[in-house]
Amino acid sequence: MSNYTHIFHGTAFSSRAPKEVMILENHLFCVNTEGLIEKIISPADTDYQELLEKYQGKDNFHRLEDGQYFLPGFIDLHVHAPQWAQSGTALDLPLNEWLNTYTFPLEAKYSNLDFAKEVYEDLVNTLLANGTTTALYFATIHKEASLMLAEICAKKGQRALVGKVVMDDKEQNPDYYRDADTETALADTEAFIKDVQELAKATKQGVYPVVTPRFIPSCTDEALKGLGELAAKYDTHIQSHCSESDWEHNYVKERFGKNDAFALHDFKLLGKKSVMAHCNFLDDNDVNLFAETGTAIGHCPLSNAYFANAVIPISHFHSKGVDIGLGTDISAGATPSLYDNAKQAIVSSRMLEDGVDPALPQEERGVPKSRISLNEAFYLATAGGGESLNLPIGRIEENYACDVQIIDTKVASAKLPIFNVEEALYDIFQRIMYLVKPENIRAVWVQGERVR
Amino acid sequence: MSNYTHIFHGTAFSSRAPKEVMILENHLFCVNTEGLIEKIISPADTDYQELLEKYQGKDNFHRLEDGQYFLPGFIDLHVHAPQWAQSGTALDLPLNEWLNTYTFPLEAKYSNLDFAKEVYEDLVNTLLANGTTTALYFATIHKEASLMLAEICAKKGQRALVGKVVMDDKEQNPDYYRDADTETALADTEAFIKDVQELAKATKQGVYPVVTPRFIPSCTDEALKGLGELAAKYDTHIQSHCSESDWEHNYVKERFGKNDAFALHDFKLLGKKSVMAHCNFLDDNDVNLFAETGTAIGHCPLSNAYFANAVIPISHFHSKGVDIGLGTDISAGATPSLYDNAKQAIVSSRMLEDGVDPALPQEERGVPKSRISLNEAFYLATAGGGESLNLPIGRIEENYACDVQIIDTKVASAKLPIFNVEEALYDIFQRIMYLVKPENIRAVWVQGERVR
Ligand SMILES: [Zn+2]
Ligand SMILES: [Zn+2]
Repeated sequence: MSNYTHIFHGTAFSSRAPKEVMILENHLFCVNTEGLIEKIISPADTDYQELLEKYQGKDNFHRLEDGQYFLPGFIDLHVHAPQWAQSGTALDLPLNEWLNTYTFPLEAKYSNLDFAKEVYEDLVNTLLANGTTTALYFATIHKEASLMLAEICAKKGQRALVGKVVMDDKEQNPDYYRDADTETALADTEAFIKDVQELAKATKQGVYPVVTPRFIPSCTDEALKGLGELAAKYDTHIQSHCSESDWEHNYVKERFGKNDAFALHDFKLLGKKSVMAHCNFLDDNDVNLFAETGTAIGHCPLSNAYFANAVIPISHFHSKGVDIGLGTDISAGATPSLYDNAKQAIVSSRMLEDGVDPALPQEERGVPKSRISLNEAFYLATAGGGESLNLPIGRIEENYACDVQIIDTKVASAKLPIFNVEEALYDIFQRIMYLVKPENIRAVWVQGERVR
Repeated sequence: MSNYTHIFHGTAFSSRAPKEVMILENHLFCVNTEGLIEKIISPADTDYQELLEKYQGKDNFHRLEDGQYFLPGFIDLHVHAPQWAQSGTALDLPLNEWLNTYTFPLEAKYSNLDFAKEVYEDLVNTLLANGTTTALYFATIHKEASLMLAEICAKKGQRALVGKVVMDDKEQNPDYYRDADTETALADTEAFIKDVQELAKATKQGVYPVVTPRFIPSCTDEALKGLGELAAKYDTHIQSHCSESDWEHNYVKERFGKNDAFALHDFKLLGKKSVMAHCNFLDDNDVNLFAETGTAIGHCPLSNAYFANAVIPISHFHSKGVDIGLGTDISAGATPSLYDNAKQAIVSSRMLEDGVDPALPQEERGVPKSRISLNEAFYLATAGGGESLNLPIGRIEENYACDVQIIDTKVASAKLPIFNVEEALYDIFQRIMYLVKPENIRAVWVQGERVR
């Protein structure tokens, strides 16, 4: 019998498939030195008793208390870390004006490393407290502050994918907030990639540099081309925004005579390690291109209600085989919680299905078969995020990273309304997804290390 | 100078008008023995210093700490108290099937007073913890358990309006869960009204009986007529559901050849003390009838996403002069929080404005000018609720009840992201509305008494 670094004992919920949740009741979860779940053992397995006897009572044996459950750590595919400082404000303008009025002036402040440190530390703490064990971050144009974000995540134990943002177009970006020129943008990106890859060597849970053109409107053709080449050279992840709003979608069509997806593809920015935020206006050709190239969608339902002008047809896109995960899109989405976004993903999909205008006859109001279930929303926040990033995360399964949230449904100040002691485990799962608050998230582990 | 029972010192946010939030910075709020705000004094007023000197340091002087703010207590216009026991589950079916599959079997259990007590006590504690100081409740058909709910609210200090539900139609309701017959339904309602009016005599914050036909589909004409008469006889509040979904709206049109609003009016169920839940499918004639009769709308945005088939045009209805407040509609709305519903009200209104289907051209997608602002959502949760109930609540103003939430933006485990000590108070207000969790609600007062 192997020696394990940690053994957890309790009931876990994890996605088996987008529409199916697996319940592992009273299992043993055996974690090795690398922080991977090496073995999952059910009470019916022959070595269950033997393992229990060997580890029970030891410091590295963690038995959940009555009313506690494991969930996979959540994966946030779209966070603008600097915008945490304006979260909950500045939601009254359309996308383009919002950027110029509130967001670019704020992001420009991250040339100040003291300010960056204060905000980034608070954000990473907050995301961990909300059960987010992996985050794909946009930082700012500043190489130093972007590296600092990666360092803070590395230190606090969150798995992070971080991009230094590129926005080099002198016409499209304000003078006070853009890369000095294309050459500097690419040189800073390359230096940033190397620094983060160096940092990664000493970071157990992983920290990854991400090639990050803000979006096509902010970048010159030369920058986009250079960034595609850097991503290939260093085999990095890639992120950007794609077909978010009418304005952004139409801008790209006018500039390139094609949709965002194909324009990004021309610059070699689509691929297995690419995650594109929003994607509300993809047509079927775009979606097929995403599926062929392995490009994933970071769905940000709350942000979309404010800035996207329409609801992305998640159910339809899933049926086309595209990887999709969830993003908070802080601060366009005014919550640090993927629970909130999972719930909003369901609500938005129901509104797409039913339609919104009561003055229309029912049959003309919505788009049939658009709704997603709670199970699918959970999948988006967990396994779908892992597949989008092409990393072994987001599931409580053997050979996946041990990234878990321990949910306490009985915490005195935030007890879930469970009045029947015999309640079916699936009902408890539903209540967790709908009603959990940060207070109920009693512990968070990443790669087999307790981080909260 | 008067003697006050309590004096609060700090900064408060309160609605001046649906679109306007008033900021009372460092004011004194002077509460009398009845629990009313008798006087509000600004630092510029002549007796400010004198009052400070007289009360400062005494037990009944409450100065907010740095980072704390007053908000009016929230008013929840639509709560099915018994359904708290299924909150977070059972959200997969359309309205009619949902009632018969999950909801009626659950509500039938409230013949058991032990079960009722356990659930109702937990619910009232939870609503208070979420800042809800007044709630308009549907209980069940059971006279005893309904009275128990009123007693629990009275004891815990929440202002409550409680209805024993009437559903007497033998064709439309299951045998295991309906009033025995019309006569019993009316007799039980009358006895319930008298019991609650008796209870009210010893309840400082108020407790009110509410005439409560579940909705037209569940009631006979005789019951509806009798309930209208009882409401007039005892001058009670009235609540029901109105034009919620395509199914419900069409049912009433087929039965009476008119819309829900006019059918309810025929039975004398509309008026100044009437609150109708949902109302998504009101047409302009219906809305005008609501405005003329003083009937209010209990808007339940989260529930509507699951059960209503369309988004209610709040902005348009407001322009017609109808009173509107917010409801959680537990458990069709899977949250006890009006913060969550205020945010969803904004999101839903934006989806109505922008539309949802990205395959449509922008100009055909939505209904222009439908969005509501954060200020309007705040109004719905506070002053709008007070006007809907025709009670002096929901505002921090002289001659209003002292119902307040004390929000702590700096509580260690749930700090709001405020990094600029000079932050404008209106930005802090926005962050409170978007980001507050129950942990941030440090104290709740109702009618000048601390209840949490
Ligand atoms: Zn973004
Ligand atoms: Zn209802």
